[in-house]
Amino acid sequence: MGSTGNPNGPDFEKHPLIPVIAQDHATGDVLMLAYMNAEAYQETLSTGRVVYFSRSRSKLWRKGEESGNVQLLKALYFDCDSDTLLVKVEQIGGAACHEGYRSCFFRQIQPETGAVTVIGERVFDPKVVYHK
Amino acid sequence: MGSTGNPNGPDFEKHPLIPVIAQDHATGDVLMLAYMNAEAYQETLSTGRVVYFSRSRSKLWRKGEESGNVQLLKALYFDCDSDTLLVKVEQIGGAACHEGYRSCFFRQIQPETGAVTVIGERVFDPKVVYHK
Repeated sequence: MGSTGNPNGPDFEKHPLIPVIAQDHATGDVLMLAYMNAEAYQETLSTGRVVYFSRSRSKLWRKGEESGNVQLLKALYFDCDSDTLLVKVEQIGGAACHEGYRSCFFRQIQPETGAVTVIGERVFDPKVVYHK
Repeated sequence: MGSTGNPNGPDFEKHPLIPVIAQDHATGDVLMLAYMNAEAYQETLSTGRVVYFSRSRSKLWRKGEESGNVQLLKALYFDCDSDTLLVKVEQIGGAACHEGYRSCFFRQIQPETGAVTVIGERVFDPKVVYHK
């Protein structure tokens, strides 16, 4: 059960697609989970804007390129197994979620009953932002 | 770009293994990323202790069963796509990471240089806890 990770950072050779947790650097709110490949990671480092790899579209996803809600990289961490990243970001526009909420985790489940409650704050109307 | 998720909770039929972000309910620190299958999720709900599914061991992973560092479920959220969970937990023993750190994200990377710094606090010695 020793450390199996790469001491120098995320191991894209072993894990071509690495999950990335985005956390608001000011509030500590967890905003979203997405993925990076090596190219997205390198562009994130070099530009200071967070770039993911979209699994559904199979291409780089420069977060905010359509909505304007880019994420500025404030700090970067990797985990014990070198297979997950944590980025602390400044979320421009105040909303990380394409549904217009600050966080993608805008719904809470009561463990006892399974009841779902929307607890998130809606910052924008996705119909307006995405013109749909 | 509308909501594609299940409004009632995580969609284990579509995603048999769902990533779960564990966050300290008191400090907001992100502790770790792990996975749940439907069985782990149901046991988490019914017991109030967080249970994951270990991908390396292909079986339920009752977090803390060896180290004693169990995670008590404080709140549960799911994301817009119903394919990621966020759990806020009380981390018994103070350390989530098998390396003895509070958080698995105990190493920071400087984007400009790639330099790695250990920023985490070591709470226990894994050699003692795991008798190895």
